[in-house]
Amino acid sequence: MRWEVRVTVRLKEGLNDPEGRVIESALRNLGYAVENLKVPKYFEFELESDNPEREVEEMCRRLLANPVIHTYEYRIEKVS
Amino acid sequence: MRWEVRVTVRLKEGLNDPEGRVIESALRNLGYAVENLKVPKYFEFELESDNPEREVEEMCRRLLANPVIHTYEYRIEKVS
Repeated sequence: MRWEVRVTVRLKEGLNDPEGRVIESALRNLGYAVENLKVPKYFEFELESDNPEREVEEMCRRLLANPVIHTYEYRIEKVS
Repeated sequence: MRWEVRVTVRLKEGLNDPEGRVIESALRNLGYAVENLKVPKYFEFELESDNPEREVEEMCRRLLANPVIHTYEYRIEKVS
């Protein structure tokens, strides 16, 4: 079966996020009252699988995220 | 008023996405039947604004996206 998968990988709280700080500063310098800007990694893909939950969980742990510094979440929807 | 904003910036269809190709290849080499993998840019932030729709639209056009090569979409929710 075919699935549409979206994975979001975030830095754990308290870890330094230089890209987020730079973009937040740039937006504030343009006059926008932005706070707590974060730049998670975001992946969208299609997956052919009989067990998408297990495979996506594996993909996150093996390649898409580093469990030491990241948290991750995913949404899996059947392709109609 | 305070808003929670999520912006997704995607490369336009047909544009080369080398990062996506590399990650897709790596996942396929691990045995996962992944296709059409994309790596959009994704921003999450809080915004203090009386007109969040207009400000977020401006931010996308001025800084977060390049309208020549990107499409973008956003979700704006009131912080409770």
